[in-house]
Amino acid sequence: MLKNKTISGSVIAAIMSLVFSAPAAAAPDAETSLVFNTLLFLIGGFLVMWMAAGFAMLEAGLVRSKNVADICLKNVSLFSVACIMWMLMGYNLMYEDVGSYFGTFFHLWAPDDTGVLETGYGSGSDFFFQMVFVATTASIVSGTVAERVKLVPFLMFTVVLAGIIYPIQGSWEWGAGWLDQMGFSDFAGSTLVHSTGGWAALVGAIIIGPRAGRYIDGRVRPMPGSSMPLATLGMFILWLGWFGFNGASQLALGTINDAVSVANIFVNTNMAAAGGAIAAFITTRLVYTKIDLTMVLNGALAGLVSITAEPLTPSPIIATLIGGVGGTLVVFAVPFFDKFKVDDVVGAISVHLVCGIWGTMAVPLTNHDASISFLTQLIGVVSIGAFVTITSAIVWYVLKITVGIRLTPEDEAVGADISELGMEAYPEFGKGSQKF
Amino acid sequence: MLKNKTISGSVIAAIMSLVFSAPAAAAPDAETSLVFNTLLFLIGGFLVMWMAAGFAMLEAGLVRSKNVADICLKNVSLFSVACIMWMLMGYNLMYEDVGSYFGTFFHLWAPDDTGVLETGYGSGSDFFFQMVFVATTASIVSGTVAERVKLVPFLMFTVVLAGIIYPIQGSWEWGAGWLDQMGFSDFAGSTLVHSTGGWAALVGAIIIGPRAGRYIDGRVRPMPGSSMPLATLGMFILWLGWFGFNGASQLALGTINDAVSVANIFVNTNMAAAGGAIAAFITTRLVYTKIDLTMVLNGALAGLVSITAEPLTPSPIIATLIGGVGGTLVVFAVPFFDKFKVDDVVGAISVHLVCGIWGTMAVPLTNHDASISFLTQLIGVVSIGAFVTITSAIVWYVLKITVGIRLTPEDEAVGADISELGMEAYPEFGKGSQKF
Amino acid sequence: MLKNKTISGSVIAAIMSLVFSAPAAAAPDAETSLVFNTLLFLIGGFLVMWMAAGFAMLEAGLVRSKNVADICLKNVSLFSVACIMWMLMGYNLMYEDVGSYFGTFFHLWAPDDTGVLETGYGSGSDFFFQMVFVATTASIVSGTVAERVKLVPFLMFTVVLAGIIYPIQGSWEWGAGWLDQMGFSDFAGSTLVHSTGGWAALVGAIIIGPRAGRYIDGRVRPMPGSSMPLATLGMFILWLGWFGFNGASQLALGTINDAVSVANIFVNTNMAAAGGAIAAFITTRLVYTKIDLTMVLNGALAGLVSITAEPLTPSPIIATLIGGVGGTLVVFAVPFFDKFKVDDVVGAISVHLVCGIWGTMAVPLTNHDASISFLTQLIGVVSIGAFVTITSAIVWYVLKITVGIRLTPEDEAVGADISELGMEAYPEFGKGSQKF
Repeated sequence: MLKNKTISGSVIAAIMSLVFSAPAAAAPDAETSLVFNTLLFLIGGFLVMWMAAGFAMLEAGLVRSKNVADICLKNVSLFSVACIMWMLMGYNLMYEDVGSYFGTFFHLWAPDDTGVLETGYGSGSDFFFQMVFVATTASIVSGTVAERVKLVPFLMFTVVLAGIIYPIQGSWEWGAGWLDQMGFSDFAGSTLVHSTGGWAALVGAIIIGPRAGRYIDGRVRPMPGSSMPLATLGMFILWLGWFGFNGASQLALGTINDAVSVANIFVNTNMAAAGGAIAAFITTRLVYTKIDLTMVLNGALAGLVSITAEPLTPSPIIATLIGGVGGTLVVFAVPFFDKFKVDDVVGAISVHLVCGIWGTMAVPLTNHDASISFLTQLIGVVSIGAFVTITSAIVWYVLKITVGIRLTPEDEAVGADISELGMEAYPEFGKGSQKF
Repeated sequence: MLKNKTISGSVIAAIMSLVFSAPAAAAPDAETSLVFNTLLFLIGGFLVMWMAAGFAMLEAGLVRSKNVADICLKNVSLFSVACIMWMLMGYNLMYEDVGSYFGTFFHLWAPDDTGVLETGYGSGSDFFFQMVFVATTASIVSGTVAERVKLVPFLMFTVVLAGIIYPIQGSWEWGAGWLDQMGFSDFAGSTLVHSTGGWAALVGAIIIGPRAGRYIDGRVRPMPGSSMPLATLGMFILWLGWFGFNGASQLALGTINDAVSVANIFVNTNMAAAGGAIAAFITTRLVYTKIDLTMVLNGALAGLVSITAEPLTPSPIIATLIGGVGGTLVVFAVPFFDKFKVDDVVGAISVHLVCGIWGTMAVPLTNHDASISFLTQLIGVVSIGAFVTITSAIVWYVLKITVGIRLTPEDEAVGADISELGMEAYPEFGKGSQKF
Repeated sequence: MLKNKTISGSVIAAIMSLVFSAPAAAAPDAETSLVFNTLLFLIGGFLVMWMAAGFAMLEAGLVRSKNVADICLKNVSLFSVACIMWMLMGYNLMYEDVGSYFGTFFHLWAPDDTGVLETGYGSGSDFFFQMVFVATTASIVSGTVAERVKLVPFLMFTVVLAGIIYPIQGSWEWGAGWLDQMGFSDFAGSTLVHSTGGWAALVGAIIIGPRAGRYIDGRVRPMPGSSMPLATLGMFILWLGWFGFNGASQLALGTINDAVSVANIFVNTNMAAAGGAIAAFITTRLVYTKIDLTMVLNGALAGLVSITAEPLTPSPIIATLIGGVGGTLVVFAVPFFDKFKVDDVVGAISVHLVCGIWGTMAVPLTNHDASISFLTQLIGVVSIGAFVTITSAIVWYVLKITVGIRLTPEDEAVGADISELGMEAYPEFGKGSQKF
């Protein structure tokens, strides 16, 4: 599915209405459509930006209190770094010809908007919407490698992920590259965003190694998160932000067809999250007897990731089932990775990588476009997986042998808050109390 | 006030402009109006969905720490359950002819959107907006019966509430049923949503009984909430979400009249919340000497519930007063229910039921439509109250004598987090500390 | 930059397009533009309203736990008070002729909307958007004077700030007053909102004096905030809300030019925040060795304040740098004020006053409109600064010698939660535990 900044959504809609005999292509005039399209990007963009707070709260709730301030700082910093790298090179690398990477944003944008009626939206709105997607990818990684990765090397990884790795693989599909031409379809980024973040997290978790004391004598020692309500809040923020993530990936609102599509995407996104939560609820109830809250939170997120590759064509009940499969998968994926001593603090690999793959492979189940097949979907998953895995591994490894990526055992034991920030997240509670 | 999916807002607006000599009925063309109407539902819908996080945080802040993870899980689960029940049967039960309850959503929606220009909005957008309303109703109940109700039976109650009780009473008014034809008016749901949730909560609180140790020797033992900032955050989330709740209940944005109306609804909604907060502040200052934060939070919510039945016709200062009466009522309602040993953990009955009734009865004060009278308002309040009370009582009672609805005294003492979830919300703080 | 309710954005846009040879002034029809303009105010308005929660969480996270419930109550109350004062007199004082201050809002608004097509938006939407700005100004003050100011006198100050001080200085610029006619430019309120709040906070901090034990033997005793994740959440909420703050200050969305402008404002707002965060990160890393999370949070906010005076004309990279300068300034401003024993609990003076001035003085760097000069910018900064300082000082001083503004030493020691509210924010954690 094309996510190209030079082809307007209304053009796509017009073509689609001819091909699929969808609702009559009656549409507001071009000026009105442009405002609608721009507005969709802006609303979608601020909702996705808000997901940065969701990841921050989810991760702050799921790490132990000695690492909470550090994970907050990582989330604020990685979002900022990702946006700056996107501005400096990512956007051009993903959407423009090679050779024009740098420099576009050193001058005013006004000239870019002279042909705006042909483009169909203000160029800033598209730039903004795509920018917050990169930040999402980077956010996924921070949760997995929390509690032992050093702050500055982590941000160095983010620089490369946001500036080079993400936009190159993104250009293959949303930049109208070879995957797009082959027929690969990833509506809002089950693979391009979530699996990409998941692969980078998986490689990072392997190279960094598990937290001290996590796996002892073949058993997994629980390290419960410090605040369940913050984790719950984070999940709800992500659920909310996902309406922008998927809805605005329609890329246009200025025709009847687009408006109807965005609405159906909202419904399916919501149903997949609900399906994922309930599936994880039932599965944990059956497999274990008690219902782990964090599994249900991850179940909802799993449902959201699963529907992201194709939130438009399923009926609501199919969307619920697609999300439900994701929510079930995550319940088994979390212990699976633990079995291989892949220490994923928040379960991000299970949610974003496993369900990202599931969601991408499920596209042909409901989208019967002639160009889409399981094979092309598989090629997309594998090629992006291989690319992200290899490049991430190189970056993590280079960082490991140069600046070092892991806290010393002493620093890890005392916690990143004290060792890296010189402060406590909750100075008056728990171990930190009695001091002030 | 009709909330019917087959009559477009622009038609209503056109009729109203003739009746009330409102601003000229100049309007954008039909295609543009459709996009505006759809967009209003989507924005309003994601704001109301966000209220689920508000209820979760409010309740997480107002229960004791041993029940925080449990209430978070309840809020995530009930929202998911409500959405799924709505999809499976609630929507059809509320808005369609009897006999077409099941099945609509097993196929694609595309056919439903062929007549979309006549309807005036994408059918998915209306479905989405109505869906998150049901979830709100269910959320109200969870706060009242917190800290002693069992998780799974509570969700079973939610299944019936969202799938049957809510849509049947809703069909009487928003489904163009007998209350609507009689002239009953409930713009955004003071009665249909808030009182309904309140009645279900009241009946539940009575049947389940108060928390252990709550009422001893005729005195109320305080059981202070575990986190005031989370409760405050929850209140702010609800305040924000209410702009969608009331504003998008205009059901259309595609005419000048609709846009002006939505704007005035935003102002009145905000003023009622402010009036409720300040009234509760002053009242507690006068009645007690210290100002309880939770009373002011509930005062703001009381103001919001109070204006929900008619957020359009009052002037801003009247809206402030309507909210202010609500904020005052809640200060007296909370001890009133305690006197009868109705143990309402978060004060939801006082906020949603008492002020829902007040707001509904206040409609004729500012809406002078010929069809509206105190008598019809009273009939609506009483008939919906009776229906919800009786049906809820049956469901709660059947659950009580079959699966059981209450934690054992031991489980209640240790807290639902450990007994039902096998985890702690704050494992490192308070009683739970010293372990990790 | 004019922010006048009687001149429609599309008129401004039309004029601007002639002056600056911007994109062709093609536009939707007047009815459609009106809906867009109204919608922009409503979306921007609810985002800025949400900033109230951001200030509440930021401040709740940065005060000690014994003052958390109190600061939550202050934030809820001040928002409510500010809205009511704005309705009663602020709006008319800022935008209308002297003599019509009272009474406008005692009747219905319908008459105001008869000429709505000429105005270009529903009057309620503008009223709502301006109302939430006032509340922002008041929110700034509460953070600075936290932990020792008494609740009710603080709200009395808010009454005067929101009802008189803010609207009078605001009328000079956004009410088309003398500063506007002189050419002073403050797009979204670096001076009118942020410096105004900052000056009022500075004067308050000086008159109230520092917290007990804060400055001993020429050293600053750290008083770390109670919850870093809540402070982080607050910062993210403010970042999100700022898209409404700056974006909707374009005041119109109903032309291509306006839509393109709002989009570019979103980008610049985001980049300035990112630049501020990273600049503060690097500066603290260089100056100190550890990276204080609160400095990075304030760095992001500093970037946002800095870009607020002119978020439209800079290119994204220049916006990043403008924000970056703000983020650097704040790292030095915080210890600077401490040197003079100005005790600012959350750093609000450094963020809102210092960077508000910087942002306002930076306008001529990118906005080359003939009427704008450093001199006129300086005149605006100084005149508003002088006015707010003098009037705030009078109000704080009168309150001090009448009702008293400061907690007794005993009350301050025990904390405002117990002494003013009779409750605890976290009754089960820290010092408060072991009781329930």
